[in-house]
Amino acid sequence: MNRKQLFEQIKRKRSYLCVGLDTDIEKIPKHLLKQDDPVFEFNKQIIDATREFCVAYKPNIAFYESLGARGWESLKKTLEYIPKECFTIADAKRGDIGNTSSLYARAFFRQMNFDAITVAPYMGEDSIKPFLAFDGKWVILLAHTSNPGSADFQLLQTREGKFLYEEVIFASQLWASPDQMMYVVGATHEEKIHSIRMLAPDHFFLVPGVGAQGGDLKAVSKFGMNAQCGLLVNSSRAIIYASTKEDFAEAAGREAWKTQKDMDQYLSEYL
Amino acid sequence: MNRKQLFEQIKRKRSYLCVGLDTDIEKIPKHLLKQDDPVFEFNKQIIDATREFCVAYKPNIAFYESLGARGWESLKKTLEYIPKECFTIADAKRGDIGNTSSLYARAFFRQMNFDAITVAPYMGEDSIKPFLAFDGKWVILLAHTSNPGSADFQLLQTREGKFLYEEVIFASQLWASPDQMMYVVGATHEEKIHSIRMLAPDHFFLVPGVGAQGGDLKAVSKFGMNAQCGLLVNSSRAIIYASTKEDFAEAAGREAWKTQKDMDQYLSEYL
Repeated sequence: MNRKQLFEQIKRKRSYLCVGLDTDIEKIPKHLLKQDDPVFEFNKQIIDATREFCVAYKPNIAFYESLGARGWESLKKTLEYIPKECFTIADAKRGDIGNTSSLYARAFFRQMNFDAITVAPYMGEDSIKPFLAFDGKWVILLAHTSNPGSADFQLLQTREGKFLYEEVIFASQLWASPDQMMYVVGATHEEKIHSIRMLAPDHFFLVPGVGAQGGDLKAVSKFGMNAQCGLLVNSSRAIIYASTKEDFAEAAGREAWKTQKDMDQYLSEYL
Repeated sequence: MNRKQLFEQIKRKRSYLCVGLDTDIEKIPKHLLKQDDPVFEFNKQIIDATREFCVAYKPNIAFYESLGARGWESLKKTLEYIPKECFTIADAKRGDIGNTSSLYARAFFRQMNFDAITVAPYMGEDSIKPFLAFDGKWVILLAHTSNPGSADFQLLQTREGKFLYEEVIFASQLWASPDQMMYVVGATHEEKIHSIRMLAPDHFFLVPGVGAQGGDLKAVSKFGMNAQCGLLVNSSRAIIYASTKEDFAEAAGREAWKTQKDMDQYLSEYL
């Protein structure tokens, strides 16, 4: 899916919500455990309940990998089940030397057919380039993440007086255009979103940290939105675990709908 | 395996060689493709041929992940086949927010029984701590990697005049002792290994980049060795693809043996 198509979906659905499929076998409702593939069954019902309110799904690969080969199958079935008009993100945070990154790209873009993958920048350009070699696919590069530890290195200041995450945004813009690259910018740094938007005016930001992690959707939208929206705001736990009982899908749909209503309003105000 | 046991193995085998199992289905000898599980069959024969000359094996997870669920099975069987006296490293370069890193830890330390996993530092302390919660397991943190792109961010200088990779080594020593943490230090930076050893005198370094990537084993050994050896030098392609014909295992064994002979000499000279 290209940038224009993504923006079309956002306008059509009046939503820039990404639903994070952090599906934990230990947290899903107990009645699903008698199914052949409880993780897929959970995802299927979550997708059915939320698809009209969101434009993207982001399976968190750790949750599937921790189940071994079986988890891999659940992930594959989930990806095939996601409606074609939705943007799909493998939240994998990969990144390795060139020949190895190529294989991760093959895994997520060919073995599976994700639109995008999250990538860690520490190993530099040749660790990222192989992901960009796939036509129509996206790298979502970690810039300033939502977790407390994001301060440890991302906020180190360089001799030029820039934060490390700013250096990452500067350097990586030489490697890929806004049609191939997005940045992860945590909602927990809402005070910085305006300045990050100045650094990368045209890029989409994938914004985690709204909901369970405490970020504020209104502030993120006000300071982060650009002329093509430029935001995919992720919510995982607040939606998929809105209820832990048999009504989990209905509850997830309701949460997603509430978020979409807010987004509808912010699109009217800030776009 | 703890640090003392690892050093015992190094002394017993007169080797600090780690064999990288970067097993590419497209590169293994054609006659193996008729086997049920060609990747495992290749690894099995490589392990049989090299086990007396090395102290560690490092499957590169991308190569297995790119094959989907089937690759995951090959990896699991490979890990079970590796002799108990060998140290095992999941070269996965993971790292995510706390609850997600916990799941990666569960995948590699519980689902499979790796001794160690490579982890990327960009997301900071809470992305690394969950891996340290497993008794007797190791984090191998990326410090200064072997690839060209390692210069892009790892060599940025902070206001205190330190390289980013030095900041990573400084900060992370507050999180874990040399009994739980190692560092990735590329052999391609042989001129820096002495100064990195000064920063982390007691830690083991996992040193990739000898062989196909051009690093020099003698220089690495001379400038990197500490009183407990403190080095695991990885070689992947130069060993496992020493021959692409039916004699691949024999050729791999010969290459590993040659490297072990050099290491025997360097242990005598520099330990």
